[in-house]
Amino acid sequence: MSGKPRHLFGGIEGGGTKFVCAVSTEAGEILAETRFPTSTPDETLARAVDFFKEQTLILGSLAAIGVASFGPLDPRPASATFGYILPTPKPGWAHADIVGPLRKAFDIPIAFDTDVNGAALGEWRWGAAKGLDTLIYLTIGTGIGGGALVNGQLAHGLLHPEMGHIPLPHDKALDPFESNCPFHCDCFEGLASGPAMEKRWGQKAETLPPDHPAWELEAHYIALALRSFICTLSPQRIVIGGGVAQQPQLMPLIRKKTVASLNGYVQSSAILEEIDAYVVPPALGGRAGVLGAIALAVGAL
Amino acid sequence: MSGKPRHLFGGIEGGGTKFVCAVSTEAGEILAETRFPTSTPDETLARAVDFFKEQTLILGSLAAIGVASFGPLDPRPASATFGYILPTPKPGWAHADIVGPLRKAFDIPIAFDTDVNGAALGEWRWGAAKGLDTLIYLTIGTGIGGGALVNGQLAHGLLHPEMGHIPLPHDKALDPFESNCPFHCDCFEGLASGPAMEKRWGQKAETLPPDHPAWELEAHYIALALRSFICTLSPQRIVIGGGVAQQPQLMPLIRKKTVASLNGYVQSSAILEEIDAYVVPPALGGRAGVLGAIALAVGAL
Repeated sequence: MSGKPRHLFGGIEGGGTKFVCAVSTEAGEILAETRFPTSTPDETLARAVDFFKEQTLILGSLAAIGVASFGPLDPRPASATFGYILPTPKPGWAHADIVGPLRKAFDIPIAFDTDVNGAALGEWRWGAAKGLDTLIYLTIGTGIGGGALVNGQLAHGLLHPEMGHIPLPHDKALDPFESNCPFHCDCFEGLASGPAMEKRWGQKAETLPPDHPAWELEAHYIALALRSFICTLSPQRIVIGGGVAQQPQLMPLIRKKTVASLNGYVQSSAILEEIDAYVVPPALGGRAGVLGAIALAVGAL
Repeated sequence: MSGKPRHLFGGIEGGGTKFVCAVSTEAGEILAETRFPTSTPDETLARAVDFFKEQTLILGSLAAIGVASFGPLDPRPASATFGYILPTPKPGWAHADIVGPLRKAFDIPIAFDTDVNGAALGEWRWGAAKGLDTLIYLTIGTGIGGGALVNGQLAHGLLHPEMGHIPLPHDKALDPFESNCPFHCDCFEGLASGPAMEKRWGQKAETLPPDHPAWELEAHYIALALRSFICTLSPQRIVIGGGVAQQPQLMPLIRKKTVASLNGYVQSSAILEEIDAYVVPPALGGRAGVLGAIALAVGAL
């Protein structure tokens, strides 16, 4: 037994429909967890505060809390709106202060970032991208988003990436479906999110049989997007999570089409010879979201 | 006068048609410069070595040398092929060892990176992107390439970015021209490089009048690419150099179309209100290439 004092961390996975809160060790071992539906910001954050207060009495003090939230949001600590959700169509959540109520309740570092940046950090710390310095985590589900670590640090820049909104080639002779994105007629999310698939094919993505042509087309768009990310950032691995990406028939198609789309241009054995280890599912499974939040907390300390 | 000893740095801008070598102070003040045509690797590097040896006798010892070269190349110091050009159609240069002959001649740190990574670092240190932590430098000329700093460090990942090869929407009804890239029917370089413009319009890009529709179409493709880079990396500024980008009518069109293509999705005043300061030409002018190489040398020390 080491004499080193054990640090505990709080994590909040702030989703559009549910919040997950957990207390964990520095190694990502979850000691307590709760989940509840996302209601108003006030009520939702009060429930999170109550959970951590209760757990502090049982398990001991927290060293830091991390919040990995739906966006858009302001993750820049030096900004006047740090810790806030930015204008969003989600009723009641535009300009909601997420970090404020937590700071008021706990005098410890509070990290705040996007859900996908959290997941990227979690997969880097404990999951499918351990030991790499440049990686991308993508989620493909109700929405499409991505987070990146470059040289071991999360990429923020202006605010945070919006990887679901890159433009993609859209051959309307092959796919006459109009984009599902209210902002862009040609973006990754508008063409390939779960709701886009549902609208295009008239049924929910998860009910489409594995040999349905929907999956070839879906893999086609995802592969174009991966080529775009690979050419822009040259990641050492791409981890793809989210509900749509969980369909087992999809991953082999994505890999094959990504290699074909790059067409030998990027001369790396990771792509040319080891694509199965290059485009991979998350290793943290159902806990990826909340472990991402905890990874943010660990990073904040 | 400060008593601090003055460091001198060597820079090599390795281009496909010419090499530029310079000796500079840490502040980027160039004290000596030479340029000569790119011939064989042996002969070209011998001329560079001779220049630096001669200048060492005149100006004093160099503290480090930086090489900013055409690619693809291997910039990973831990790799067995560090300092080499990778397979390239350029006759005689595939597998050429660039750093080896320099190391043999000079017992000092030798930095080696892409021309665009060098230019990104130079514009960050002395030029149009000073003080930022996340930025992109693009060149649009005979080829298209890009380099990025993220959190103040160059992005490498697998090898280095290949920003000219992201896929872009290509409406063949609007633009029936087939891509000029032998690898991709739909990439940025294949649709928007100088040679692509020349082939599409039957005359050299620089001879097309400013009100020719070529420039609207060129700005259209560049804006789509900028949207892709902005959504992927969220840079705080994008610097665009290269021969094609020097056409004065192009920059305002690129800015307008980039804002239109993002369509308000990225909620940053840098884009919504200050686009003229967000998409900018390089500040280092004709010396951007060799100053980029010197910035690599300064960084290596």
